[in-house]
Amino acid sequence: MKNEKAILLISCQDRRGIVAEISHFISTYSGNIIHSDQHNDDTSNTFFMRIEWNLEGFTIPREKISQAFESIALKFKMDWELKFSSKKTKMAIFVSKYDHCLYELLLRNRAGELEADIVQIISNHEDARSIAEYFDIPYEVFKITKETKREQEAREIELLESQGAELIVLARYMQILSPEFGEHFRNRVINIHHSFLPAFIGAKPYHQAYARGVKIIGATCHYVTEDLDQGPIIEQDVSRISHRDTVEDLIIKGKNLEKLVLSRGVKLHLEHKVHVFGNKTVVFD
Amino acid sequence: MKNEKAILLISCQDRRGIVAEISHFISTYSGNIIHSDQHNDDTSNTFFMRIEWNLEGFTIPREKISQAFESIALKFKMDWELKFSSKKTKMAIFVSKYDHCLYELLLRNRAGELEADIVQIISNHEDARSIAEYFDIPYEVFKITKETKREQEAREIELLESQGAELIVLARYMQILSPEFGEHFRNRVINIHHSFLPAFIGAKPYHQAYARGVKIIGATCHYVTEDLDQGPIIEQDVSRISHRDTVEDLIIKGKNLEKLVLSRGVKLHLEHKVHVFGNKTVVFD
Amino acid sequence: MKNEKAILLISCQDRRGIVAEISHFISTYSGNIIHSDQHNDDTSNTFFMRIEWNLEGFTIPREKISQAFESIALKFKMDWELKFSSKKTKMAIFVSKYDHCLYELLLRNRAGELEADIVQIISNHEDARSIAEYFDIPYEVFKITKETKREQEAREIELLESQGAELIVLARYMQILSPEFGEHFRNRVINIHHSFLPAFIGAKPYHQAYARGVKIIGATCHYVTEDLDQGPIIEQDVSRISHRDTVEDLIIKGKNLEKLVLSRGVKLHLEHKVHVFGNKTVVFD
Amino acid sequence: MKNEKAILLISCQDRRGIVAEISHFISTYSGNIIHSDQHNDDTSNTFFMRIEWNLEGFTIPREKISQAFESIALKFKMDWELKFSSKKTKMAIFVSKYDHCLYELLLRNRAGELEADIVQIISNHEDARSIAEYFDIPYEVFKITKETKREQEAREIELLESQGAELIVLARYMQILSPEFGEHFRNRVINIHHSFLPAFIGAKPYHQAYARGVKIIGATCHYVTEDLDQGPIIEQDVSRISHRDTVEDLIIKGKNLEKLVLSRGVKLHLEHKVHVFGNKTVVFD
Repeated sequence: MKNEKAILLISCQDRRGIVAEISHFISTYSGNIIHSDQHNDDTSNTFFMRIEWNLEGFTIPREKISQAFESIALKFKMDWELKFSSKKTKMAIFVSKYDHCLYELLLRNRAGELEADIVQIISNHEDARSIAEYFDIPYEVFKITKETKREQEAREIELLESQGAELIVLARYMQILSPEFGEHFRNRVINIHHSFLPAFIGAKPYHQAYARGVKIIGATCHYVTEDLDQGPIIEQDVSRISHRDTVEDLIIKGKNLEKLVLSRGVKLHLEHKVHVFGNKTVVFD
Repeated sequence: MKNEKAILLISCQDRRGIVAEISHFISTYSGNIIHSDQHNDDTSNTFFMRIEWNLEGFTIPREKISQAFESIALKFKMDWELKFSSKKTKMAIFVSKYDHCLYELLLRNRAGELEADIVQIISNHEDARSIAEYFDIPYEVFKITKETKREQEAREIELLESQGAELIVLARYMQILSPEFGEHFRNRVINIHHSFLPAFIGAKPYHQAYARGVKIIGATCHYVTEDLDQGPIIEQDVSRISHRDTVEDLIIKGKNLEKLVLSRGVKLHLEHKVHVFGNKTVVFD
Repeated sequence: MKNEKAILLISCQDRRGIVAEISHFISTYSGNIIHSDQHNDDTSNTFFMRIEWNLEGFTIPREKISQAFESIALKFKMDWELKFSSKKTKMAIFVSKYDHCLYELLLRNRAGELEADIVQIISNHEDARSIAEYFDIPYEVFKITKETKREQEAREIELLESQGAELIVLARYMQILSPEFGEHFRNRVINIHHSFLPAFIGAKPYHQAYARGVKIIGATCHYVTEDLDQGPIIEQDVSRISHRDTVEDLIIKGKNLEKLVLSRGVKLHLEHKVHVFGNKTVVFD
Repeated sequence: MKNEKAILLISCQDRRGIVAEISHFISTYSGNIIHSDQHNDDTSNTFFMRIEWNLEGFTIPREKISQAFESIALKFKMDWELKFSSKKTKMAIFVSKYDHCLYELLLRNRAGELEADIVQIISNHEDARSIAEYFDIPYEVFKITKETKREQEAREIELLESQGAELIVLARYMQILSPEFGEHFRNRVINIHHSFLPAFIGAKPYHQAYARGVKIIGATCHYVTEDLDQGPIIEQDVSRISHRDTVEDLIIKGKNLEKLVLSRGVKLHLEHKVHVFGNKTVVFD
């Protein structure tokens, strides 16, 4: 496979010699490092690395790289993942009625900006079905009520697993997922919250922002955890507003911010540039 | 006085004909409007206006304008203030040990960017005395303890009144003023809070931001009210950070943001561009 | 018509009493001003105004307002336009192969963010036909060669006139329009240039930016004039880049900036907030 | 020396095994890597690296590290520099009459934000002498006329050399240095240009920006080369403006942008994070 690249994502306790050993491994088998980024978290003495090398001329076959790297990983007690650039992540999108984030993801993916294979769209409403059809992606509606939530989520998980979904993106999905759902897809559910977290947690953040009289609104892309709007933040951005903006204006300005911030966060995840680390992230952009 | 301008700041219940009457008043006496800005708050049906006109050729003498305008003000039950561009606001600055905001205000004022006459610097420490001397501004230290706070604040108010201070700027002053102090200078005490409010209220916001793992930090310039960090926001801005930034890095990046945001907020106040309206502001920039 | 508003866009030589006369006109006939913004250009002594009032209760019928205002306009030798909020602007979009700006405009318009009635899409390629069909908008291809340009543009103008197009948006249209075309739709053709003008005029601005080693890229929304990329600027914005970004990365980051900047510029035009003034604009946002 | 760090800045033709060899060198002698950043420029096949490690426990004495590293450097034909965190760069500042950038650098340095030892201030005017005295830094005036330029620059170079100046910062110095001066301090003279380069090269950029009607102004920090305003860009940033801003407003907004951008650029240089590469930079921030 031409231009195929391997990507190692590593974290472990920091020690002398980690970089030397990893880079020696790659160069020994004639790999050429293209990108390498590392970070040392002083407060916890944790080492993070993302290293990407060209597989052209690399003397270990693709399917045996994991096995070959195992001894180094064991020596340093690494948490690690090996990814290949040619392997697109299977992604599912959850949506309710607002469709701006959904369109943004679908259009960017079709334009080749995202490395995703979008396998499923799930909604609690029929509204976005025609969009799914236009982009030729399976669409399934799961109506959610208090009573049916647990059961419906179980069916969603079943569908997602059958489709091989590796990443779930909540594109302004207006239901709160149960902790069990989040646990099932730990660090693999990305949400867009329409505020500059931790300001304006919970419902109707634009109404909250309007009431508080802030001069800037924000959007936050984060992993979902069992605590609402408290998960590790991947990306944030802001837009300036003024007293002239009504709540409706905030909602419109916010929509165009949400879709940007969500897309950037999803792109970073798909390019294997995000380490989750406690309730924070290390983002190698 | 050449190039002298009059500025009217008005708010009242919205009704037909307000603008017509005000602009008619100015044109009748041969005033030429230079800037005019208005806002109608739909939720409360409140009308806000800032109107600035040239006094060259204006046929009412400066000292009689208020009296002449009175009947219009009464008719519409206006809250209103009349300001003159040649009259600099008397400003006092409170500071503790961090001096970056103090320097920024002093330097900008000397460069002519701010329309202030800085009459007094007050601190709870000796540290900034040499700065005050360099800029030739009176400097007074009031040590604050739990026991002496009320008494010391009374002495501060006495000094400020004797100096004619119209605006108090808290330039990273590390003491919380009593509600009585705030009440005495209602809507005339401006603070810089080193976070993007309402995120990270209270102490050590950079430590809070670091712990939460945000990707952007902020600063907020607001009027002081009896509720800590809850007063009307004048101006906010943000800086991008990453996992590489330690708390110390946040503090440095934050300092250079704080001084900008505080200066912009103070400048807007000094140019009579800010209406306080409940817990929000209307800023005519 | 409920909630119908009238909007006056005015420019003329500055004189005393203009605002008084206009606001008196509105209040005399029981109009309630909702927004009013004015600007005085000192260098040319020009007065600009945008004033918007509610027609509910206004005692002049909609169709007679122009006639009633005529005498004031004559007195001050105004350039003026009267617009109504219920009347959507008829807009045509030109596109080539890049479809991100086209989608952004179509989606925002469908979501109600833009006050446009999109009557026609014109392209020099077949590529975007299915998009036009999906949004149910007429699509016409005019192939352009050096030889056929004049003739094809004449046919385009004929089609646009037959559709009543009032505004032409070049959504990354990769042909340069003739001065005659620009003259025909003077101040009514909006282009997005993929650089921070006046830097990187002309072809391949991202390649130019990459070669120069800038740390920020930009996009510029402007009216088209006979001088390439020199027309009045409506809106600009920027994105931060680094040495890690290849030309391809700049193109992707740029695309997502272009669509935002173009949409904002078009929205301002559609809301009648832009005055063209020589080679500059006055934008009442 | 506690907390002492060594920093290697490297560039060479890209080959397999460079990172492995460097990291092996550091770990062999018990160094612990704190930061490491690398970049591969595809178009020229050039490898860039900045690697920083703790000298506590490093078994090669500080003064012998260069010698020990020499063989690796030779093997890969590296351009390289070895820096130590405890060694502050000797910096000189050139200034004319505007003092905002000068103050910003002096204050940030005194606050410990910059790793500089400011050894000299040079001006073509007397204006800033009292500032130099306040900060206790030698101040020398060299009046420049067309006739005396060459001779005065020779004296400036002599003074700078006698002071051991390693970096020259032009803090709004309003004279163009001769190519000879630039050549003498190649890649060691940093300038702030008050526009978003390459827009508005040369004199009076704010007047140019005003005339063009841009909606955003910028500032650019760059190394000085023999081509005016064409040197490698280190840092840029922008501020939003509107039709309300006069040239004087642009100058004020610009001043507060210039001092930020210059400080950030100088800080990056002082922390040995900038590679100059042809007419571009690789900035490891």
